Amino acid sequence: MSELLEHINSPDDLKKLSVVQLKSLADEMRQFILATVSKTGGHLASNLGVVELTIALHYAFDFKTDKLLWDVGHQCYTHKILTGRKEAFKQLRQADGISGFPTPDESVYDQFTVGHAGTSIATAIGLALGEQLRQKTEDRNQKTEVRSQLPITNYQLPITSKIVAVVGDASIVNGTSFEALNNLGLVKRQLLIVLNDNSMAIDPTQGAVAKYFSKVRLSQTYEDLRKTTRNILEHMPAIGKGVEEVIERIKKSIRMVLPASQLFESLNIPYFGPVDGYDIDSLIQLFHALSSLNHPAILHVYTKKGQGFSPAGKEPSRFHSTGPFKDNGESIEPASANGRRSFTKVFGEHLLQLAEKDDRIVAVTSAMCDGTGLSQFREKFPERFFDFGIAESAAVDIAAGLAKEGLRPVVCIYSTFLQRSFDQIYQEVALQNLPVVFCIDRAGVVGADGPTHHGLMDIGFMRMMPNMVLAAPADGVEMRLALEFALCEDKPVCLRYPKDVIPSQGVDRKACSEPFQLGKSVVVRRGDNSSIAIVTYGSVLTEALIAAGLLAQDGIEVDVINARFAAPIDKQILQLLLREGKGVITLEDHSCACGFGSAFLEAAAELPGGITRPIVVLGMPNRPIKHDLRAKQLMDAGINADRIFQTAKEMLRIMVTGNRLNGNKQ
Amino acid sequence: MSELLEHINSPDDLKKLSVVQLKSLADEMRQFILATVSKTGGHLASNLGVVELTIALHYAFDFKTDKLLWDVGHQCYTHKILTGRKEAFKQLRQADGISGFPTPDESVYDQFTVGHAGTSIATAIGLALGEQLRQKTEDRNQKTEVRSQLPITNYQLPITSKIVAVVGDASIVNGTSFEALNNLGLVKRQLLIVLNDNSMAIDPTQGAVAKYFSKVRLSQTYEDLRKTTRNILEHMPAIGKGVEEVIERIKKSIRMVLPASQLFESLNIPYFGPVDGYDIDSLIQLFHALSSLNHPAILHVYTKKGQGFSPAGKEPSRFHSTGPFKDNGESIEPASANGRRSFTKVFGEHLLQLAEKDDRIVAVTSAMCDGTGLSQFREKFPERFFDFGIAESAAVDIAAGLAKEGLRPVVCIYSTFLQRSFDQIYQEVALQNLPVVFCIDRAGVVGADGPTHHGLMDIGFMRMMPNMVLAAPADGVEMRLALEFALCEDKPVCLRYPKDVIPSQGVDRKACSEPFQLGKSVVVRRGDNSSIAIVTYGSVLTEALIAAGLLAQDGIEVDVINARFAAPIDKQILQLLLREGKGVITLEDHSCACGFGSAFLEAAAELPGGITRPIVVLGMPNRPIKHDLRAKQLMDAGINADRIFQTAKEMLRIMVTGNRLNGNKQ
Repeated sequence: MSELLEHINSPDDLKKLSVVQLKSLADEMRQFILATVSKTGGHLASNLGVVELTIALHYAFDFKTDKLLWDVGHQCYTHKILTGRKEAFKQLRQADGISGFPTPDESVYDQFTVGHAGTSIATAIGLALGEQLRQKTEDRNQKTEVRSQLPITNYQLPITSKIVAVVGDASIVNGTSFEALNNLGLVKRQLLIVLNDNSMAIDPTQGAVAKYFSKVRLSQTYEDLRKTTRNILEHMPAIGKGVEEVIERIKKSIRMVLPASQLFESLNIPYFGPVDGYDIDSLIQLFHALSSLNHPAILHVYTKKGQGFSPAGKEPSRFHSTGPFKDNGESIEPASANGRRSFTKVFGEHLLQLAEKDDRIVAVTSAMCDGTGLSQFREKFPERFFDFGIAESAAVDIAAGLAKEGLRPVVCIYSTFLQRSFDQIYQEVALQNLPVVFCIDRAGVVGADGPTHHGLMDIGFMRMMPNMVLAAPADGVEMRLALEFALCEDKPVCLRYPKDVIPSQGVDRKACSEPFQLGKSVVVRRGDNSSIAIVTYGSVLTEALIAAGLLAQDGIEVDVINARFAAPIDKQILQLLLREGKGVITLEDHSCACGFGSAFLEAAAELPGGITRPIVVLGMPNRPIKHDLRAKQLMDAGINADRIFQTAKEMLRIMVTGNRLNGNKQ
Repeated sequence: MSELLEHINSPDDLKKLSVVQLKSLADEMRQFILATVSKTGGHLASNLGVVELTIALHYAFDFKTDKLLWDVGHQCYTHKILTGRKEAFKQLRQADGISGFPTPDESVYDQFTVGHAGTSIATAIGLALGEQLRQKTEDRNQKTEVRSQLPITNYQLPITSKIVAVVGDASIVNGTSFEALNNLGLVKRQLLIVLNDNSMAIDPTQGAVAKYFSKVRLSQTYEDLRKTTRNILEHMPAIGKGVEEVIERIKKSIRMVLPASQLFESLNIPYFGPVDGYDIDSLIQLFHALSSLNHPAILHVYTKKGQGFSPAGKEPSRFHSTGPFKDNGESIEPASANGRRSFTKVFGEHLLQLAEKDDRIVAVTSAMCDGTGLSQFREKFPERFFDFGIAESAAVDIAAGLAKEGLRPVVCIYSTFLQRSFDQIYQEVALQNLPVVFCIDRAGVVGADGPTHHGLMDIGFMRMMPNMVLAAPADGVEMRLALEFALCEDKPVCLRYPKDVIPSQGVDRKACSEPFQLGKSVVVRRGDNSSIAIVTYGSVLTEALIAAGLLAQDGIEVDVINARFAAPIDKQILQLLLREGKGVITLEDHSCACGFGSAFLEAAAELPGGITRPIVVLGMPNRPIKHDLRAKQLMDAGINADRIFQTAKEMLRIMVTGNRLNGNKQ
């Protein structure tokens, strides 16, 4: 820590500094973030980019009453440090520490728990329209003295706050952002959108808007940015002048800002910039000037991912979200190597192998090439690799078109972000019965990223769709088999797998090395005279096997079945289990609501005679799961061997007494 | 019928006509559509608007091999009539007739089954990228003579087709459209987007883009449009010239097209127009000229909803989707009045009443003001009514912002379209636990609109979310009570109700007139010594009551329980039923997968001892439900009194024999 930052525990402390001191504070802040993230892991490049911008925002506004909305939110570290969370920051993304994303539970300075892209402009519009409406009601109530029964002015919220949404160039092209921009005209009061243009999301930004921004960027010198800033400041305090007139004057003074404004002008949004995102002094003046507008406006600010830390500046994609690392001067090394490979890695490698033999295979992603294991694929087959940017909705529709042309699109999107494509998966893929393969990475709890990033709903939303096949591999061998299966089906198939390494123990490789057959489960362990079967879906199989071992030590034999499919459910094995009078424990890394166990119950209820033996569904509860280690999150939810062990014992007890009870009643 | 149309049974027949004859054909077509839709009901205004445009498209292209993609698709009637479905058209949207939307099951001329907005550009990009890739593979294979194991060129699909996407001005502002436009630059071959600008979706188009189009439109005379057309045609056949050069030349000749092109220019999309959508001759020439580009392009075409039928032209919103009507010269009257009021109407009226007493209530919709019953609300409280256009994703995020400001947003979106907001409902509403009320109209099967429009997944996707309360009213009284309940909860609440009238019989008004209490069901009928309970969710209660009456006539008494809530499930009543040893039949107008019955099974499995009596879930099967009468669709799926009657009898039989079997085993 160092002399200035040491004394900053709130935005009020910040405001005690002179503008000149802020530059030094920014340097200290950057060192503090680097030092912390190298120990805890976290989002690095994006946070190093916006240090000065964030300091300027908190210096110019008062976000106790004003409202600051982050888009995606992974760039909020400086904001958190400035708003009383400096100490907690040292346990960033850890169980007792703070979240890596904004969250109102932590601080009044956070408006929304966010994590997905493209939402800040829309929520800002909502806040602005809300204040606008409350102001009108208050005015009317004061005039008429007729107060309504439940007046909204009862609410102790300010109605003259300033609203600022910070959105990156990668987020602003998201469909939700665009829908919001198209509706921005409804807001008849101040609302500032800060376009944080670092020309790079996680992977380089895709698409026409990105090209357009980059063209503008290349056409301008640093001196141009300074000139633009001067011109805006010179013309802004034009009290009484309309915003259009001000913009006209600025335009006349600096011809080079014209092209950057075209997109926003056609949407009738007053545009200012581009300006330098590291000139704190100017930024503060600009924020003061623009906050006086009684109209929404966009300020276009240039920043750079990884600013001030050369490894992250050179490889921002690698330092998007990083584990702990060592800082050896210029170079960095991972702090530890686990040795075991992840599902993602096995998937990526096998897809590459299959693609070499099958020209039809194309890979589709949405700004997550590295994260979904496609980097090698992109390198080897650049023409067969498609990254559509943060545009999950369109990505799925484009994949549907590709499938219709006879290709085999493999859509690689994290479970949580695939929620953005629900309707497109339904209408353009499932309803048409097109052979699109969805490789759903980050299915289940994801550890340190927390509630916005868990993938706990994909089984539910996918299994309602017609024609959709749902499968999950239990280990690396099954990852490959499942992918081969999926690519041979003439219908849509989902494969889900966690952000985790391949289980190192427990999985019986023999049973799980048989090729996948549609809707067929495999028996991994058969217990002599067992009364209970544990049926698992996906990588949690390993926990069931450990539990079975523990139970065997207590003299209790159980069956362990790897379901492989959640749709269709293997009714043959289900019928067998129930006919044999077995109780069933299902296990999954998904919400209990609508998940695999729920599908199992539905299928069991359909059998002749219905359910006659207990079925216990183990999965995630229906409440937000806080950031923590993934293993810890699973354990807390009881998705582990110990809980299975307890459940099986309790089930045995109930089956005996319960049956007796039934017998007595007859 | 009349002389030209009589002989048109395919696009080949169309091509036998002279261009001069096409104008007469258009008149006949319009009469044919009017005559049919007045009998069958259907989408009228949009179809009358695009008669000439569709004729010109089929005249200029060959959509046996070329590909025509409709956005939303409700404007496809002329297309269907021209492509061999003229006779079937007389049974439009009826069980034995054709769908009101494009569907590949009907014709090779239909590419995708569509119904939701904003998908055509993305799927067109997919088709184009697919052809592009197949072309490259073919070229390479021919050069190297190394053929891969599964070459995509095995597929018997043309790789030099022309691709045309027709998208309305209301659809192009949808987020999915914008994401697609942003990625259009990936296409390095012909792809024509026809922007069908009728300045009006179902309700007047909202937002900045609409204002921009309308400004352009107002600035131009009919003569300007003709001049633009002439200029495009004059400059287009410029072989060897790049598209940028052609556009530069056109721009120089006609200054007035400049403003209309700005939005698309900033996205680097070659833009042509605007041109007159009723000048068939020119349209054909334009299509020929533009189809020769080796680059995507947009042609902006002006049309008018309801063209040629004055009542529809005056009130396009009323004639968006109409039931049968009489054509009395200028005026029209509904063919029949049902007398009973719809859930939508009861909802709309009651919301209005509540809003008078509670200033916090605001209504939010997405281009469906009339359809969701909000017309009076809009009229009475224009400042508290928000229509964000076809932008369901942003609409929900804006509602979240409004809720955060202390307001009580009531989001009125059809079940099927709410699928577009899944992720936003999760992240910005449920995760924040904000009190947004979702009034999910068109929940369940919707009759004539068919598979793209049924609302069969909302229970499933909503009940996975934390904090979310799910309720459904059984009749008009409950509609009001449920709304009052929802507005008083401090958390998000969904209410679902069908596109149907309030049931006229069967509902016991006494039990259903008690206020809604969170998670509490009501017992509507109690049978003496009953062994079976029928538990229903929503308006299907009436069928259960009829079934109970029929069963009583056979001497079988059953309980009938109106669940009211799908989340949380009433565990008290559930426990009571199972403790009393009753079998349960659940009934809902939703997919069996993840629906109310599924939630009931999950809750039952969690009880101590688990499920010990049969539970049968009655609901919709997991396959596309074709267009038909809603009552017929429900009956076919067994969501009716007769099926409940049979199921109850079968269950009784099994409970007796099944219990004996259990007893024997012990």
